[in-house]
Amino acid sequence: MASGGKNSCYMNLCGEVSTDGARVNPVESYPMNGGEGPTSYSHNSQYQGEGVNASKQLISAAVANNISLSELSSLDTFHIADLGCSVGPNTFSVVQNIIGAIEHKLLALGASSKVVLDFQVSFNDHSSNDFNTLFSSLPSKGGRRYFAAGVPGSFHGRLFPKASLHFVHSSYAVHWLSQVPNEVKDETSPAWNEGKIFSVEAKQEVQEAYSAQFAKDVEVFLKARADEVAVGGLMALTLPYTKGSVYVEQSLFYRLFRILELALNDMVNKGRLDEAKVNSFNLPIYIPYAEEIQKLVQRNGSFAIEKMQPLTSTAMGFSSRLDARKCSMIVRAPMEGIITQYFGNEAIDEIFDKYVEIAEENWDFVAQSAAFTDDLFVLLKRKAI
Amino acid sequence: MASGGKNSCYMNLCGEVSTDGARVNPVESYPMNGGEGPTSYSHNSQYQGEGVNASKQLISAAVANNISLSELSSLDTFHIADLGCSVGPNTFSVVQNIIGAIEHKLLALGASSKVVLDFQVSFNDHSSNDFNTLFSSLPSKGGRRYFAAGVPGSFHGRLFPKASLHFVHSSYAVHWLSQVPNEVKDETSPAWNEGKIFSVEAKQEVQEAYSAQFAKDVEVFLKARADEVAVGGLMALTLPYTKGSVYVEQSLFYRLFRILELALNDMVNKGRLDEAKVNSFNLPIYIPYAEEIQKLVQRNGSFAIEKMQPLTSTAMGFSSRLDARKCSMIVRAPMEGIITQYFGNEAIDEIFDKYVEIAEENWDFVAQSAAFTDDLFVLLKRKAI
Repeated sequence: MASGGKNSCYMNLCGEVSTDGARVNPVESYPMNGGEGPTSYSHNSQYQGEGVNASKQLISAAVANNISLSELSSLDTFHIADLGCSVGPNTFSVVQNIIGAIEHKLLALGASSKVVLDFQVSFNDHSSNDFNTLFSSLPSKGGRRYFAAGVPGSFHGRLFPKASLHFVHSSYAVHWLSQVPNEVKDETSPAWNEGKIFSVEAKQEVQEAYSAQFAKDVEVFLKARADEVAVGGLMALTLPYTKGSVYVEQSLFYRLFRILELALNDMVNKGRLDEAKVNSFNLPIYIPYAEEIQKLVQRNGSFAIEKMQPLTSTAMGFSSRLDARKCSMIVRAPMEGIITQYFGNEAIDEIFDKYVEIAEENWDFVAQSAAFTDDLFVLLKRKAI
Repeated sequence: MASGGKNSCYMNLCGEVSTDGARVNPVESYPMNGGEGPTSYSHNSQYQGEGVNASKQLISAAVANNISLSELSSLDTFHIADLGCSVGPNTFSVVQNIIGAIEHKLLALGASSKVVLDFQVSFNDHSSNDFNTLFSSLPSKGGRRYFAAGVPGSFHGRLFPKASLHFVHSSYAVHWLSQVPNEVKDETSPAWNEGKIFSVEAKQEVQEAYSAQFAKDVEVFLKARADEVAVGGLMALTLPYTKGSVYVEQSLFYRLFRILELALNDMVNKGRLDEAKVNSFNLPIYIPYAEEIQKLVQRNGSFAIEKMQPLTSTAMGFSSRLDARKCSMIVRAPMEGIITQYFGNEAIDEIFDKYVEIAEENWDFVAQSAAFTDDLFVLLKRKAI
């Protein structure tokens, strides 16, 4: 995996979707590890930060090519939302890049004196996200050109007033599902995902169940954003994707999770975790084909696909700085919430000690994956109806 | 003191004001006690909740008399901000009341089918406020009619884009100063406030220093709000005020702090706190005369005073439910941050044990104060320029 911006971990155990597509029940969520400690997301998201860097030029180009000066000059305030922002620091870099691109555009057109825009930035993540850490690390007023707000709630539902957003960014978040598909946890179902923790290298029925859940979630996501994004507004999404089954099996993204799978099964063999419990444990993430996203956007009908392209891989450079312990932290920071909710707090250190051991023993498996890794950049524009 | 909405504690030790009146340096702050523990603000703000109840009818009347249907029908989104919101639950009740009043107005005019407003609510407090607790106690989506955001930062400066707010509420917050006036901490100044902790019953020079700081802060506050509130928009402020010196000395508000003053001085006598340190300790709060507020609003020039009236006292009913320990909690929840920052963590329990002891010994002093207590309700309307 090359990158992505900042993870956001959405797991819905009881969320229900109402007839108008908005979720009406509270959605359970497991945010990235908060705070500033050694296992925190803020100290273990350089990896996702690589994706922020990789997408910078694409976002600048998106602004340059897709936002007109007349659109800007009709606005008093340009409203940016980062969905699934987690706790920083990547989200601040993303936002600065978008604002910089708009200011550059205004300057290049010699229009800086005519258009004086206020920027409003909304940082969104689940209400259980550590917003206190996010807010305390926000650049000081002197160091930022925008008004900041935190918006708590699942992006699988409405978060903002109608037509109020001009640029939506979401990096490495949309591949998180609102829930693990029920069938894969059900021993009696043909889609039971025994011994595995997500859909890569799983049987066809498992892959189909994950794909169906992804489709349902993206439908809800796009419907909400269609309401919220003003006509002409942009939405830039970065997420891991599947070029083909061989590709995804060789991706760093998958291999980091494959080691977690091995670690959990090893804990079963040692009698440290219950086999039935591990068999029913699955991650709420899905790595879609680009064609799936394309189809879902077209079915929604409110957005034009302006761009859909692989992000140039930055993982190769990044993986040369990795070691087994760093890999375990990269997986632990976003996954600790899910794992402890399922298996309790007692086993968490042991699981990740085992992770480090297996990663060290199989270092080639990790190191040789990077060359196959990249992510998808998708730029959508809200159509007039 | 009758009431107020929710405290917010603003203490600026290093904030500087730029030429345009916006603070440019980070402002130090001591938020209300966070979380849900026994000394938390969320469990010790029923007192301020009384003020929310007392101002409900006035706020409903403000909406009924000062917002026209044509103004509402020109909007897609009605944006409400609660400044100094703390952690709830009072802020949720305030917001629900404002929205209820607007919906009532629309219904009464038979216009509900014509005007479909989205409501955006921004909950503001210092970035060190416990927003995690605020967000986790936010009414669920099914239980609220608004989109919610948290806005971190001092209201002694800009927080929102220009002309973006339609109703600003701030209850029991504007009397918090951005800093203790320097002179009152200075042994060589005629305004040195030896042995006392704020301006009530203090010498003239101390009162003048506090009054000057309040004027400076309210100027900055009004200048920022004048930029942010749309023409025709309302601002409802509730704060304690001084009818006259006798009045304020007999107020519950003052007497609760007077006991803290006695407790600190007792700790000095017992050798548990350093005398010089207690002498230089002062609270960043000021209880203004109504005329001071009136003059500051007029000097700013952007707002018309639609209403300025005492809130009907609710303290009498409330004080009958008080006891010495409850009083100590009411003072501790907002003040613990300031006190521990100044005196360290070690003394805090002892200070409030002493508080309980003195309150018990002088219970009449507390109980007989309530009848003299009320607060000021101020309704401002953003003028066209």
